Amino acid sequence: MAQAVRLVSTPESMPKIEHFECVEVDMPEPADGEALVETLYLSLDPYMRSQIAGRHMSGSVLPGDILRGEAVSRVIKSRNPALREGDVIAAHSGWRSHALVTPEGARPLGFSGLPESYGLGVLGMPGLTAYAGLLLRGEPKPGDNLLVSSAAGCVGATVGQIGRIKGCRTIGIAGGAEKCGWLKNTARFDEAIDYKNENLREAIDRHCPATPPYGGIDIYYDNIGGDMLQAAMERLAFGARVVLCGLMDQYNSKVVPTGPNPALIIRARATVRGVVVYDHEDLRSEMVEHISSWIRSGDMVVKEDITIGLEQAGAAFVKLLSGATYGKVLVKLT
Amino acid sequence: MAQAVRLVSTPESMPKIEHFECVEVDMPEPADGEALVETLYLSLDPYMRSQIAGRHMSGSVLPGDILRGEAVSRVIKSRNPALREGDVIAAHSGWRSHALVTPEGARPLGFSGLPESYGLGVLGMPGLTAYAGLLLRGEPKPGDNLLVSSAAGCVGATVGQIGRIKGCRTIGIAGGAEKCGWLKNTARFDEAIDYKNENLREAIDRHCPATPPYGGIDIYYDNIGGDMLQAAMERLAFGARVVLCGLMDQYNSKVVPTGPNPALIIRARATVRGVVVYDHEDLRSEMVEHISSWIRSGDMVVKEDITIGLEQAGAAFVKLLSGATYGKVLVKLT
Repeated sequence: MAQAVRLVSTPESMPKIEHFECVEVDMPEPADGEALVETLYLSLDPYMRSQIAGRHMSGSVLPGDILRGEAVSRVIKSRNPALREGDVIAAHSGWRSHALVTPEGARPLGFSGLPESYGLGVLGMPGLTAYAGLLLRGEPKPGDNLLVSSAAGCVGATVGQIGRIKGCRTIGIAGGAEKCGWLKNTARFDEAIDYKNENLREAIDRHCPATPPYGGIDIYYDNIGGDMLQAAMERLAFGARVVLCGLMDQYNSKVVPTGPNPALIIRARATVRGVVVYDHEDLRSEMVEHISSWIRSGDMVVKEDITIGLEQAGAAFVKLLSGATYGKVLVKLT
Repeated sequence: MAQAVRLVSTPESMPKIEHFECVEVDMPEPADGEALVETLYLSLDPYMRSQIAGRHMSGSVLPGDILRGEAVSRVIKSRNPALREGDVIAAHSGWRSHALVTPEGARPLGFSGLPESYGLGVLGMPGLTAYAGLLLRGEPKPGDNLLVSSAAGCVGATVGQIGRIKGCRTIGIAGGAEKCGWLKNTARFDEAIDYKNENLREAIDRHCPATPPYGGIDIYYDNIGGDMLQAAMERLAFGARVVLCGLMDQYNSKVVPTGPNPALIIRARATVRGVVVYDHEDLRSEMVEHISSWIRSGDMVVKEDITIGLEQAGAAFVKLLSGATYGKVLVKLT
């Protein structure tokens, strides 16, 4: 038998373990042109919260549906010569132990000599999000103060490290001493702000020296929204760039939230733009080439948070949303 | 004796006539290097509401202060060879009948053969705001749907007409049938939306045909903020540009307002930027050259709302803020 995880009901606020159910399903049988893959690693990402709320641009997950998501998998039975048994590929196959893929729906990892799980993280969708978002939307210049929220997450940590490589002063925001210690000591951010134990506004002011009447943030890479976005936008440097990447703050809310006063954008002559990873497939091979070389040279470190077993995927996702994880959150299948 | 208008007290909400007081003051006497000018036209602008609220980037006007503002004036007595008697210049001389200027504080109008009052409107600060804001921030392309709020105001009418000249489909938002008739029939906007008598959201949908899931607004040039900005941002086309120029909606508010949900920016892949006219002095001569040629060729029309007498300036300003005026609002001194 194969396994899959279904959404039991739509969470009203923060999802709980009981919203997810791991069930046995029939082992799929590949038709002509298809291949059967077994999942090695399943990626868990904050955007999935938005899918199960029914408002993500990639589509909705409704009660009874198997959850969606990207996985790294191995071909175990093929009826397509383009997918050979033993090939390792990434595919949007969902929270499943086994799935059917076609060559069009499978993506080669594009690297070797590094852990295959990186294809879901720093060398996958989050890596591309960070790379395209920072370079195309953040336009980093040497000496820029780059502030990153959710900095110990996979996207945030990648943004900060690319920023350091590009010569920025990097300031990461994360919750708790452990994450902040990792940011400073391992990921080599210049500064880390522990928003759970520090006054966020004072800490930004201290780490991003300002030239009044402007603030000191040249680039704000936002994965959170809400009050963190508000605090950063009150402190933008002249000509700042704000990169809107994720809105974790509103994924659990049923109310349509507001945003910062537009006067803050005018005052700072800021440019505010979003990054949507689906728009940047053309950068994927360049991203993989650059980030894998930074990993090999030691310029970039990678943190993963791996849970074992598909039946633990719901619990791992709840933990991700609670802020208790850092690095790339993955489920490794047994 | 000379005249000047003082702020009596800081308005809590919408300013009233009694917040302004026209008083007699001593006739200024030019020192060496200065010239005495008599005001011909005083410019009244929405940003002044923000000055008297104490929160405009150009500075504050407090109770007892003479109101600030730009005027077109004639030199009547000079102790500087660079300013000859009879010269007509523009200067930030405030709500005064007479003032002292130096060559550094005086700007030649830069055009001839058109009314001197245009130097405060379509060929002055509002014209430069419209020109720089639309061309640098809006990046108009032929066929773009350009939506402009406060479209019958000097900035808005100039934006829409430049947009038409650049090949955009222009949709203006204004209050009342008279302004909307003027927009369509005289200023030759493609469409006009009377927000006082139409459902704004339905009218935008009708005039900016959309390609779901995106809206139909390629450029939104905003002079208002508030719910009008919200409505437009819900309807942005893929890759839209939002130009934040003015926030009339909040000038009378003591509460710091919020803005639209940042998710709308991400979804539309929009670029949101402000325009601050002080940043664009380098474009002034180019702007005067282009706009004056469009006026002469008939491609651009100019509307002025002229009140006679400095003692009427407060009343004219109250009228401007009430939305009862359109075109460039000026006080002509007697």
